[in-house]
Amino acid sequence: MANSRFEYVRSFERENIFPQETYLVVRVDGRGFHKFSAEYDFTKPNDLDALKVMNLAARSLAEAIPDIILAYGDSDEYSFLLRKNCELFERRESKLISTFSSTITAYYQHHWSVVFPSKPLKIERLPTFDARVVMYPTAKLIKDYFSWRQVDCHINNLYNTSFWTLVEKGHLTPKEAEEKLKGTLAADKNEILFKEFGINYNNEPEIFKKGSILVRENPSLLAVPEDGSNLSERQKQREMKKLRKSKIELYHIDIIKEDFWSTRQYIFE
Amino acid sequence: MANSRFEYVRSFERENIFPQETYLVVRVDGRGFHKFSAEYDFTKPNDLDALKVMNLAARSLAEAIPDIILAYGDSDEYSFLLRKNCELFERRESKLISTFSSTITAYYQHHWSVVFPSKPLKIERLPTFDARVVMYPTAKLIKDYFSWRQVDCHINNLYNTSFWTLVEKGHLTPKEAEEKLKGTLAADKNEILFKEFGINYNNEPEIFKKGSILVRENPSLLAVPEDGSNLSERQKQREMKKLRKSKIELYHIDIIKEDFWSTRQYIFE
Amino acid sequence: MANSRFEYVRSFERENIFPQETYLVVRVDGRGFHKFSAEYDFTKPNDLDALKVMNLAARSLAEAIPDIILAYGDSDEYSFLLRKNCELFERRESKLISTFSSTITAYYQHHWSVVFPSKPLKIERLPTFDARVVMYPTAKLIKDYFSWRQVDCHINNLYNTSFWTLVEKGHLTPKEAEEKLKGTLAADKNEILFKEFGINYNNEPEIFKKGSILVRENPSLLAVPEDGSNLSERQKQREMKKLRKSKIELYHIDIIKEDFWSTRQYIFE
Amino acid sequence: MANSRFEYVRSFERENIFPQETYLVVRVDGRGFHKFSAEYDFTKPNDLDALKVMNLAARSLAEAIPDIILAYGDSDEYSFLLRKNCELFERRESKLISTFSSTITAYYQHHWSVVFPSKPLKIERLPTFDARVVMYPTAKLIKDYFSWRQVDCHINNLYNTSFWTLVEKGHLTPKEAEEKLKGTLAADKNEILFKEFGINYNNEPEIFKKGSILVRENPSLLAVPEDGSNLSERQKQREMKKLRKSKIELYHIDIIKEDFWSTRQYIFE
Repeated sequence: MANSRFEYVRSFERENIFPQETYLVVRVDGRGFHKFSAEYDFTKPNDLDALKVMNLAARSLAEAIPDIILAYGDSDEYSFLLRKNCELFERRESKLISTFSSTITAYYQHHWSVVFPSKPLKIERLPTFDARVVMYPTAKLIKDYFSWRQVDCHINNLYNTSFWTLVEKGHLTPKEAEEKLKGTLAADKNEILFKEFGINYNNEPEIFKKGSILVRENPSLLAVPEDGSNLSERQKQREMKKLRKSKIELYHIDIIKEDFWSTRQYIFE
Repeated sequence: MANSRFEYVRSFERENIFPQETYLVVRVDGRGFHKFSAEYDFTKPNDLDALKVMNLAARSLAEAIPDIILAYGDSDEYSFLLRKNCELFERRESKLISTFSSTITAYYQHHWSVVFPSKPLKIERLPTFDARVVMYPTAKLIKDYFSWRQVDCHINNLYNTSFWTLVEKGHLTPKEAEEKLKGTLAADKNEILFKEFGINYNNEPEIFKKGSILVRENPSLLAVPEDGSNLSERQKQREMKKLRKSKIELYHIDIIKEDFWSTRQYIFE
Repeated sequence: MANSRFEYVRSFERENIFPQETYLVVRVDGRGFHKFSAEYDFTKPNDLDALKVMNLAARSLAEAIPDIILAYGDSDEYSFLLRKNCELFERRESKLISTFSSTITAYYQHHWSVVFPSKPLKIERLPTFDARVVMYPTAKLIKDYFSWRQVDCHINNLYNTSFWTLVEKGHLTPKEAEEKLKGTLAADKNEILFKEFGINYNNEPEIFKKGSILVRENPSLLAVPEDGSNLSERQKQREMKKLRKSKIELYHIDIIKEDFWSTRQYIFE
Repeated sequence: MANSRFEYVRSFERENIFPQETYLVVRVDGRGFHKFSAEYDFTKPNDLDALKVMNLAARSLAEAIPDIILAYGDSDEYSFLLRKNCELFERRESKLISTFSSTITAYYQHHWSVVFPSKPLKIERLPTFDARVVMYPTAKLIKDYFSWRQVDCHINNLYNTSFWTLVEKGHLTPKEAEEKLKGTLAADKNEILFKEFGINYNNEPEIFKKGSILVRENPSLLAVPEDGSNLSERQKQREMKKLRKSKIELYHIDIIKEDFWSTRQYIFE
């Protein structure tokens, strides 16, 4: 009876498997975090403790999944890079999506209770996360992907810093602040901050301006065999062990310039 | 600068959109719950409180997503049926997978803290869930799908009941119990339970034998226009409101026989 | 050596398999037939001999593939309906696309040489065809699909008839004819044809106004077992034999009204 | 009326678009060519005229599609490499499959009538072709792909040469020849040919042993801008023009060794 006559319904299941020898980026982002941040009174434009929860959750996830070689986060969003040789869940899309969205949710909720002991989460507004996987074939695309996210962080943070300064220090209504910023360039916003409020945007904390980078430092991976053959199962296991033991560092630095990447060629190997 | 020169990397994103007018089943199941149940000392073969957490999490999810018209759960697994006209997230696969896996995780963790106040979750073993979406074109396939899950529940529960009775009351080692049950049919297991331990399997709790059914009762959906045209936006909103207000009932009954379905034709409309 | 060390590259192959118990429509259409029809001097707006080639090619294809239960064509386009139980190529998309595009090409070229013995095909302008497969879950969608194509045929034919009448009988330039027809409704075009040229559009040949329908008549398929079980392999073979022997009729009739379908329920079984 | 109420059925269409900056290989192969070669009395084990038709058809296809930078064929099969920057049909799978399967069919039928004027094709056995597209992210994979096909050619040709020599010169039945070759290695087959029939396999024609390579020689593509930006539309058009004008050479040489590739780096650019 192990195989009931109903089991044929399984034949309707489909699986998307990402091709080997490509980079996979898994991006998670908070669902409805606009309302979430309002419900739990986040400091504006940036809540350092909330960022701490997000960074702790991302670090826990990176520690749990050795194939994550690099991650970048800003606000309620994080992008995780899986190394080219990653064979996690045989690269099945639904497993990757559900593992990342579920695990980041579990860690976020857990770290929240530690960082915000006085703000218990309410069942009406629990933190949840979307996830999607994108495949990239080349190292250049990966650099451009992470540059895209960091530029986005910069754009958003400069806007939000200007907006909330106008509202909280300039006593404008949100509507008025929005109007004032409409069509302004970066230079304009810098000038508003400096001339009207004496704020030098360059002196803002790096974590706000640059976002957060988690990188698995120097895992000293095995050299790929010169004859072009693949690693043996045993070599793969040794490699995973090295990855697992390697240290994960947190930075708030520029990843658009080549410097960051040129000293970390192993990211692409 | 809103569109940085790196933004082109978005063109690598892909989206699978499930076709309209088909039924979607989202199945979630606990990741590594064998170890999870050992870590938190679940009663064997069934832990009524753990089932309660699972049923509460599934109910919270069904209340949050009105398109869920039916759900069936057993052990650490739950299947949710989205109605044929469901337009949730435009039927995008990655959004459906991540929403279900993330949200069931958030609710499970929350309800756990209420049901098990004396067993705080440890960061080394948090509950997480996989999710997958399967598309079915006909009502018959949906009935067969849920029948498949209920037959599976029955097979597993009879086996587990026999196994743990042999271990706990019969003082066999797990190895010996496994050996003894190898190749036995349902009738054999029933006889072992009855002859050796005086247990009539039929008297076991229905929640163990049949699993749990959540059904949105009598949402009194709108009649589809006779001319075959689609519902207007306003009619769709009224329908969603009716779904949201309709009551969700919990049962532990047979869903393989036609009775369950013939009185609930609206499930397929 | 049968398995060389290079064979691993096969693991990059992917296959989309259409779900069972759904209807598949394969639509083929001529590539660059605007230039093709100019190269070989097609009569405007409709070339009866060219339509004959297309209909012969479609019939040859339908005779070769018994799972085709219905087809509809107009101009250089044809849509083939594969019955719900079709298991052709295990419903693999790439096999279906390439079989239909390749086979219609082969038959078109062959029938061309018979119908147009005095117009040999030139290598610079050979007839080729695109193909795509679309999955539909319900019978209503299939009726609407074919209605869509027949409405399209009507719209195009009324426009083309008006356009070429204005050019050939009214001595307008193509540019002038286009201008004159811009924004006109069906009634306006009917009036132009009748008032200015004495042409009653209703008297135009049915093959132009309605397109061509190929239907496998009365294949007297096997009844599906009442217990809901699937057909045995032997029953499937008997069914294929019946399909292969059933007659394919050509019509130029209305398929939008329910009459066509209500007398041919077997199309959907 | 241009948009009839039935047009919504288009929303069921799906499209797979291959990611940019990857190599695409389109492989076509004859459908049922075992029977086809019997019907038209192909010389065994290799029919030089039939190979000529195949090579002419492949060349016509390569001339028609400038993005084809390399192709390899053997027997009734041909693999076409589309360059990394190829934007043909926006890299849509169904368009690529149907274009290749349809066009190779049209050219094969056309060239057949020239090469075999005394063997007109019969409608009961027309030549048709399957096609599939496979995506590869790296140059190494492309080299391995084409090596795989050439190794396959070698294995098949050595087997077929031995088999037909045993049948035609050794007067064995096909069954006996098959038995005799079962389990033999390449060296064994070479020895049978040499010792029993005085045939030195090395002296067999290169076209049989190595297959056929079509390569677009020295298209002198534009250098990619150093700043990493993409080509302008005008630069793309100039590139396509260069590709179209570059000469396509036919070889029967080794493409497994690095020599072939190291002198043709432009293949991967």
